[in-house]
Amino acid sequence: MPDTTPVFLEEFINLHPADLADRLQRLSLEEAQRVLGELPPALAAGALAELEHDRQRELSVTLPVQKLTPLLTELPPKVVADLVPALPPSARRATLDALPAGQRQRVQALLRYMPDTAGGIMSDRFIMLRDDMTVEQVRELLRAQAQEERAEDIAYLYVTDAAHRLVGIVSLRDLVFRRAERRMSEIMKHDVKFLRANDDQEKIAQQFEHYHYLGLPVLDREGRLVGVVKASDALEVAQAEATEDMQLMVGLSGEERALTPWHKAVRLRLPWLYINLGTAFLAAAVVNLFESTIAKWTVLAVFLPVIAGQGGNAGMQTLTVIIRDLALGELTTGDGRKALFKELLLGLVNGLAVGLVVGIVGYLWKGSAALGLVAAGAMVLNQLSAALAGVAIPFGLKALRVDPALASSIFVTTVTDVAGFFFFLGLAMLALRWAGS
Amino acid sequence: MPDTTPVFLEEFINLHPADLADRLQRLSLEEAQRVLGELPPALAAGALAELEHDRQRELSVTLPVQKLTPLLTELPPKVVADLVPALPPSARRATLDALPAGQRQRVQALLRYMPDTAGGIMSDRFIMLRDDMTVEQVRELLRAQAQEERAEDIAYLYVTDAAHRLVGIVSLRDLVFRRAERRMSEIMKHDVKFLRANDDQEKIAQQFEHYHYLGLPVLDREGRLVGVVKASDALEVAQAEATEDMQLMVGLSGEERALTPWHKAVRLRLPWLYINLGTAFLAAAVVNLFESTIAKWTVLAVFLPVIAGQGGNAGMQTLTVIIRDLALGELTTGDGRKALFKELLLGLVNGLAVGLVVGIVGYLWKGSAALGLVAAGAMVLNQLSAALAGVAIPFGLKALRVDPALASSIFVTTVTDVAGFFFFLGLAMLALRWAGS
Repeated sequence: MPDTTPVFLEEFINLHPADLADRLQRLSLEEAQRVLGELPPALAAGALAELEHDRQRELSVTLPVQKLTPLLTELPPKVVADLVPALPPSARRATLDALPAGQRQRVQALLRYMPDTAGGIMSDRFIMLRDDMTVEQVRELLRAQAQEERAEDIAYLYVTDAAHRLVGIVSLRDLVFRRAERRMSEIMKHDVKFLRANDDQEKIAQQFEHYHYLGLPVLDREGRLVGVVKASDALEVAQAEATEDMQLMVGLSGEERALTPWHKAVRLRLPWLYINLGTAFLAAAVVNLFESTIAKWTVLAVFLPVIAGQGGNAGMQTLTVIIRDLALGELTTGDGRKALFKELLLGLVNGLAVGLVVGIVGYLWKGSAALGLVAAGAMVLNQLSAALAGVAIPFGLKALRVDPALASSIFVTTVTDVAGFFFFLGLAMLALRWAGS
Repeated sequence: MPDTTPVFLEEFINLHPADLADRLQRLSLEEAQRVLGELPPALAAGALAELEHDRQRELSVTLPVQKLTPLLTELPPKVVADLVPALPPSARRATLDALPAGQRQRVQALLRYMPDTAGGIMSDRFIMLRDDMTVEQVRELLRAQAQEERAEDIAYLYVTDAAHRLVGIVSLRDLVFRRAERRMSEIMKHDVKFLRANDDQEKIAQQFEHYHYLGLPVLDREGRLVGVVKASDALEVAQAEATEDMQLMVGLSGEERALTPWHKAVRLRLPWLYINLGTAFLAAAVVNLFESTIAKWTVLAVFLPVIAGQGGNAGMQTLTVIIRDLALGELTTGDGRKALFKELLLGLVNGLAVGLVVGIVGYLWKGSAALGLVAAGAMVLNQLSAALAGVAIPFGLKALRVDPALASSIFVTTVTDVAGFFFFLGLAMLALRWAGS
């Protein structure tokens, strides 16, 4: 058979699927489509599975069902289940129907779970053994399955009773060394750590960080084994979650990358800038209340950035600590009062320390003891507002069942701006009245 | 033998070491010391290994060497190597000398690597096979080692040549199914992904996310196999890195937790608040330059929070996207110009969109077309400054070999405050001059 590989494909066909995905990520959509369409289905499928979700969606959507299906049949059910929800609603049904029945059932079973739960992250490729099987029977079973599943995916073998309830775990190592006639129930380890299908991403990351396993079994409500979450998948999810929180905090969607096209980034960022603008006008309205005070004492305007800057920074410090610990499950809802108390105490101490310096600078720079006192007092009150907002806003968002990180820095700086200006200009007005009387 | 377990210990001795560590974490230091001192050494050692670094350090420091050594001898060399640097310098030598010679050598070998590299994260517990060994010989070897090493730690077996250079990989599965006389060189997979001992945390997380392995071998400069990084350890490191970046950005140490004692948190946060104060005075100095302009046109002070708020938020958006992609290795130093171009274009578009609204509000609220124009123009220029600072500062810190996240939000908001006020008040001064002439 003559070699009919087109020249432009040669550089792609010998790559690892993950590396091929990297290359496809950097091509234009049209080029990526062309390469994917020409590659052998197994390789194209592997690369498709490794692509970032945006690109995966763009490419899956533009491939017709009859081109997409051969790729999907090459992929494990877990990967197909991750891909299907990205398709336009009209194509989902047709794509599922085009899959072989066995694969379709496994995909549909996985699709029943929410994407950010253990059920949504788990793979259904794992080895399940009955507790009355012998070592010899298990060796036979594995030999028969050796073709289907990739060897490197398997770290543990799970043992269930007749009702598919997880009762123990054995290692591949046990199969090498144990006598052929021993039963699983005799050699298995009984104390197995597991996840529940509806455990959320944070719980999952926490369990892996805590126990250092290579994989954790997932049980449904009845205690039946339904899947396995691998440590590397949990790693990816934890990383996505942590960086998503960083983005959500400052008013980004969690999806933007440094090289996302600018017109798409505008759509993602501008709404948050408008929300921030609305809150900035709130702060402006507070300053506006005191316009006559500023007209009499213009130097107050010079100190506005100091008030806003310190309050904002302190608020962000508190917020970042709280959001991290909420995200990683190290802080529970019940710990809220304890955290608030710590932050208020800290705000008081930091407020006094910073207020003292601001007061002294105010006095030395502008020669006004009154300005120094007003600025110092406002600084203490503003640090306390920052502490309150930095704890209350993420806990409040969580109570509303919204991601505690969502736009929280915008809300916190609104509070610190509004409160800071109000205290600073209000105290200044009182000082002017007192001096003027 | 009568049961001499003190009553207070009963609730601890049946826990998994990780759960025991959780309990120790929440006890007072004195109580934790007492529990740790009374527990059987193996269990105490396991719990010590799982503690967070702060508590680990506190407890290791207060235990005398003769109490600490029996615990350390129970632990794998990797865990001891993580612990030793936490000890006071005077205790390090004594502690190392008290270890059995074999363990001491392994610990010292690990201590040669920097803590945030593959060498610093890797474990030295792995199975290394010579390429000329047969399946039967390997089975014998594993049987002999079965007592020493925990079975669940082993996912792959690494094959080296006579000079310890990595040449391939076999799975435990191969040992179950391959014929006893086959040699490793015949059954091994040759294309092995690996890490270099000096690869940094970000590279490691990237490799695991990319290839989804349970573990990756670590090679020294000569290509010799020196250790293995497990996916779960990489997970922990990636999570620490991502949340550390969030904290560093806003002027935190990366070590603070929501329930860190307030007096410790003061020491961690106050220095950054003072740095932020210094930069806030820079912004104040800019406003001060234009004090006479504000005296003539007080309403300008009302718009200062809007300028600062929008510039700060836009700068944080850019910064967060850049830092995430730098941290995860998705953005290389060479991509800087591309990212800057995108951000400037985005800043121009967002600046026009936001400037338009600010201009209209300025005109409608204060009835001054000049104010609207000045605010709108300043907004566009400020968004461009935010784009420039949000890209240049993290890339600059990286070029200086500092973590790109370090206090970067403080620097970026300084730029947006200073530039924003300068453009806004400068344009206002020009408008006043033009109107006044």
